[in-house]
Amino acid sequence: MTFDQWTRLVLDRVESALDHYLPAADVQPAPLHDAMRYAVLGGGKRVRPLLCHAAGELTGATPEALDAAACALEMIHVYSLVHDDMPCMDDDDMRRGKPTVHVKYDEPTALLVGDALQSQAFITLTSDVVDAPRQASLVRELALASGSIGMAGGQAIDLASVGHSLTREQLETMHRLKTGALLRASVRMGAVAGETPSADTLAALDKYAAAVGLAFQVVDDILDVTADSATLGKTAGKDAKDGKPTYVSIIGLDASRALAQQLRADAHAALEPFGARAQRLAELADLVVNRVS
Amino acid sequence: MTFDQWTRLVLDRVESALDHYLPAADVQPAPLHDAMRYAVLGGGKRVRPLLCHAAGELTGATPEALDAAACALEMIHVYSLVHDDMPCMDDDDMRRGKPTVHVKYDEPTALLVGDALQSQAFITLTSDVVDAPRQASLVRELALASGSIGMAGGQAIDLASVGHSLTREQLETMHRLKTGALLRASVRMGAVAGETPSADTLAALDKYAAAVGLAFQVVDDILDVTADSATLGKTAGKDAKDGKPTYVSIIGLDASRALAQQLRADAHAALEPFGARAQRLAELADLVVNRVS
Repeated sequence: MTFDQWTRLVLDRVESALDHYLPAADVQPAPLHDAMRYAVLGGGKRVRPLLCHAAGELTGATPEALDAAACALEMIHVYSLVHDDMPCMDDDDMRRGKPTVHVKYDEPTALLVGDALQSQAFITLTSDVVDAPRQASLVRELALASGSIGMAGGQAIDLASVGHSLTREQLETMHRLKTGALLRASVRMGAVAGETPSADTLAALDKYAAAVGLAFQVVDDILDVTADSATLGKTAGKDAKDGKPTYVSIIGLDASRALAQQLRADAHAALEPFGARAQRLAELADLVVNRVS
Repeated sequence: MTFDQWTRLVLDRVESALDHYLPAADVQPAPLHDAMRYAVLGGGKRVRPLLCHAAGELTGATPEALDAAACALEMIHVYSLVHDDMPCMDDDDMRRGKPTVHVKYDEPTALLVGDALQSQAFITLTSDVVDAPRQASLVRELALASGSIGMAGGQAIDLASVGHSLTREQLETMHRLKTGALLRASVRMGAVAGETPSADTLAALDKYAAAVGLAFQVVDDILDVTADSATLGKTAGKDAKDGKPTYVSIIGLDASRALAQQLRADAHAALEPFGARAQRLAELADLVVNRVS
């Protein structure tokens, strides 16, 4: 199977699974469920679900178990986008090529959509496609990656940094929490969904995820200044306009491009112990670095 | 032990456990952790922790297991208050006798405090004070009670109801989700934290929780028109001012008082199968109905 065929297969599976794990649009309260589905379905690069499915190949996780983990990850990611786009945060009107939730509906709905999607992620993980010990492990990985020492903590640092100059180290800490924690959880949860991974396996996956996570952010910063809004599906040039520190603003565009390639090499190196079984993870590192949107 | 001694003992335990399960104020990002602790510690009636500890006596749950479940419930409750008080929702300045989080800090902090407290609840439940099957059951109970078919769904219905006239049945549905779901989870999680409860036990507890949950709301509506802000620790008369339908506005003050007493009797009746073991649950039903704040 080519990489393109594999991604298409996984994306189709995950889209169906999201449709299944989200409450139907006619379940009460229907307006909230409609908005949750609007936010989640039919858009996004689904990087986290792809990483999760790819990592699960290392530990023989079932596709059904990976679907549940992937959906939970995507629900957390989307909730963070919905809240992040709200007027009191980044105040963005466009996401994934569509009006953001508070624009399409209203602010209270956006707040509740985010809140309910976080709960829905944990409902999804405990829906009995894996045994109880795996459910508990998956919940803990996702909760730690989402909370104050993970994604939410990174957003707090991000907000506090607007208009301030950050060192490269401070910028890295912020991204390690804000986007890195959930990308790391994507890889770890894929592994945890199968046969219990060894400490060595998890350590190698952490190294891989750290490189891919940082690469993802460096490329995001590059695209913010080089791509247009239509290609990105969100407002381009926003970070510069908002005075947010980025890799491009701190080390420049050329050094950022070189850094992305270095991180891609680091990610490949971390996968060496796994040999050909890690093919999809290696290809995903390339996808993250070479993406144009 | 008198009921007052028992509640004091449980409240002290829960306060210590909350201090333990919340990240310390010097853990990075410190400003976020400071705000999370401000929101949760040193206030509130702790009705959910009390219900959880009382129900745990029926199934021999350990105090440590009940502390974890109680803290998770309180974190979810507080996150909902923090988000509910935000300007785009109820826009309230005062809560538990202190400035609300968005007033004391700012709106983005309030949003992230709520988001991170929800994650922290699931971190708390998976901290290994109970075995993995109980962790998974507790997570599922709490996630279902918090999400779109529970608390968040009830808030969506509440928002949609402002300025509209509701029937008594519609008002009941709203409250069954908005506050009832988490109160029900408090009782169920206390039971689940111990020896696996029978279906009959859970059914009796559901009946008890339905009566106590509704009584809680009826009394809330009564206090909104009869108590003052200083006693309540939040703005009195807010529901009437906001045009929110309440029991008092639909059936009147006298009928609301009679309904609260009827629900108290229903709660006691539901506990009959348990005899003296349910003493604390029975006393809590009295507390909920007779409270003055």
